[in-house]
Amino acid sequence: MSKPKAVVLLSGGLDSATTLAIARDEGFERFALSMDYGQRHSSELDAAKRVADALGAAEHKIVQVDLRAIGGSALTDDAIAVPTSPGEGIPPTYIPARNTVLLSLALGYAEVLDARDIFIGVNAVDYSGYPDCRPEFIDAFRALAKLATRAAVEGHPVELHTPLIELSKAEIIRRGADLDVDYGLTVSCYQPDRDGRACGVCDSCRIRAAGFTAAGMADPTTYLA
Amino acid sequence: MSKPKAVVLLSGGLDSATTLAIARDEGFERFALSMDYGQRHSSELDAAKRVADALGAAEHKIVQVDLRAIGGSALTDDAIAVPTSPGEGIPPTYIPARNTVLLSLALGYAEVLDARDIFIGVNAVDYSGYPDCRPEFIDAFRALAKLATRAAVEGHPVELHTPLIELSKAEIIRRGADLDVDYGLTVSCYQPDRDGRACGVCDSCRIRAAGFTAAGMADPTTYLA
Repeated sequence: MSKPKAVVLLSGGLDSATTLAIARDEGFERFALSMDYGQRHSSELDAAKRVADALGAAEHKIVQVDLRAIGGSALTDDAIAVPTSPGEGIPPTYIPARNTVLLSLALGYAEVLDARDIFIGVNAVDYSGYPDCRPEFIDAFRALAKLATRAAVEGHPVELHTPLIELSKAEIIRRGADLDVDYGLTVSCYQPDRDGRACGVCDSCRIRAAGFTAAGMADPTTYLA
Repeated sequence: MSKPKAVVLLSGGLDSATTLAIARDEGFERFALSMDYGQRHSSELDAAKRVADALGAAEHKIVQVDLRAIGGSALTDDAIAVPTSPGEGIPPTYIPARNTVLLSLALGYAEVLDARDIFIGVNAVDYSGYPDCRPEFIDAFRALAKLATRAAVEGHPVELHTPLIELSKAEIIRRGADLDVDYGLTVSCYQPDRDGRACGVCDSCRIRAAGFTAAGMADPTTYLA
């Protein structure tokens, strides 16, 4: 019997790599989907390619979406700096409607593949406070997905899996290590250099480094600071 | 006092042009948003530009989203033909998750502009049966939008306006004519030629032509067949 197909959103970071490994562990044929939204450097997408390959994705689709045309985030507008120390509230690395766009693309891709499952590695424990990582957002997208597509109308809605949503970063790392994820392939940094080396001072680097420390594991990341 | 800002989704067709005119009539400063998803011809986007200009949009943003990478529709995959006679069910011109992607982009653009209103010209009367044009889909997106963005979390959710949703095509055309929409600028056809001339036989052309007939108005469209 062939494996059921799943679309797995893949950024090239730690969380989505772990999610891809979980989808593999659960017996899905994995169709990885990344968004090229005009990242500061291509190292994030390079990491996604390495991870998709290492974890045996059947396909890795990169969809170009020019979120720079909209801007409004340190990750899509060069005029907005990536913070290098912790701040209050939702940080400027928040990309307006990013996960809504990502999940919309996943919904379309799943429909074309006739896949009934979508995996996204959102996490609402050790995270940057983004609104579109929270369980209530995910639940609202689930409700939307039941109405949005031809597949759903014809009785085949997708199931949206968020295996990391209630895990701490340390728990995610331990889970991934159990599943043989090579975190040396991943890039979490919001402003990696051209070689994919992490800045060590952005929110994402700090959360990652603290996660490895809490997990009691060696962090394979090369931090520049 | 300055006018409130609204994002208006603009395809270059009859419905979205009418919607833009309604947003003007209701006193909004209009920020038009189109998606370049790899349309068969640029004439649809050319029409959107003409309409945005004619109806005095403050800005017209065209965001590139490569839906051809996903495919699955006669409008995003050259291997799938546009039907030229009426068929059963949802036609192959349906683009998987199209309106979910469009509304996601509008949500992000509205947040960046600090706009509290989004207009979309979906219609569930004289339409092709697309699932993401129905009122229940729109309501689900409204619920999602309340949770998806920083603006919403901070107490400024967007309102989603669908002024055409319960109108017949004839009623839409009469409304637009009252608001001085020049329908000669618009392109409804799913497969216009390079000069924007309509095929006359696709679903969208048939619905449009029947609408003008029912409205008792002259159709400014040049149909090739």
